[in-house]
Amino acid sequence: MKFCTSCGHAVALRVPEGDDRERYVCTACEFIHYTNPRIIVGCLPVYEDKVLLCKRAIEPRYGLWTLPAGFMENGETTMAGAARETWEEARARVSNLELYRIFDLPYISQVYMFYRCDLDDGKYGVGPESLESGLYREDQIPWDEIAFPVVRETLQDYFRDRRAGSYPIQVMPLEYRPH
Amino acid sequence: MKFCTSCGHAVALRVPEGDDRERYVCTACEFIHYTNPRIIVGCLPVYEDKVLLCKRAIEPRYGLWTLPAGFMENGETTMAGAARETWEEARARVSNLELYRIFDLPYISQVYMFYRCDLDDGKYGVGPESLESGLYREDQIPWDEIAFPVVRETLQDYFRDRRAGSYPIQVMPLEYRPH
Repeated sequence: MKFCTSCGHAVALRVPEGDDRERYVCTACEFIHYTNPRIIVGCLPVYEDKVLLCKRAIEPRYGLWTLPAGFMENGETTMAGAARETWEEARARVSNLELYRIFDLPYISQVYMFYRCDLDDGKYGVGPESLESGLYREDQIPWDEIAFPVVRETLQDYFRDRRAGSYPIQVMPLEYRPH
Repeated sequence: MKFCTSCGHAVALRVPEGDDRERYVCTACEFIHYTNPRIIVGCLPVYEDKVLLCKRAIEPRYGLWTLPAGFMENGETTMAGAARETWEEARARVSNLELYRIFDLPYISQVYMFYRCDLDDGKYGVGPESLESGLYREDQIPWDEIAFPVVRETLQDYFRDRRAGSYPIQVMPLEYRPH
């Protein structure tokens, strides 16, 4: 950032008094601009022995497959955000959402939260940010065309947990991995 | 916000093309400013049959008791952030952090994440944002002087789960409750 959101003058990076890290501080009005990690909420929608995937119509990872997920918005819960993203990207309604995976991605200051859920009536469509959507069994998933490591990890964990019959919630950091 | 962080000109609230909610958009360069919920990370440090609480030296809730917690910073994991806040507010080192409670507070666009953990050697101090710190058994906790509903809920749940001998992770929304 270059300019103060409060008065429009230039900002500079410095450590405010009583703080221990650099912030963008206004050179005129001294307003301190904090920036914080963002939350990405998503769903793992399940119907019978299949999961719902979307093929991305946007960058990054255009043309690769993902679980419906996106930035959490102000004024919503993590669960409501996950359901909203699933509607927006796959035109799918979901029920019985249960928190499943949390990923810390400190190198890009993001926290992912995925909810396991039921895909209502097995119905879905294609939202504007997707090229197509589809229900995939484990052996049908395009494993070599998955958009993000957090999605691959969540899918792998889900099918393993499904065989074990129990879905413990896990939080895990993911190191940077080039695709 | 009033001014664009990118060019310093005035912003206006409008719905960008392809979006469905109002954002602050620059009237000159068209830059879209997204704002998203913030994550607050904290610990429930345990030593023997006691938990560590801090008396707040800052607003809001000056003089009331809380668990060590604060805004997650860029570049850290939720777990590292929770441990950092515990050091900053109570000069305490903690180990064996396990995710315990997640609270959605949509009315203030915050998500709280509390980790259960061991307080190393039962040692603690007082950080600059605290008036005092202390280890409290369930019957010693100043229940009428707890700073935030999320803290009261986490403490109540902890002592109940402790009696049951199991600490399932839960995510729950909290409605607005005046103190």
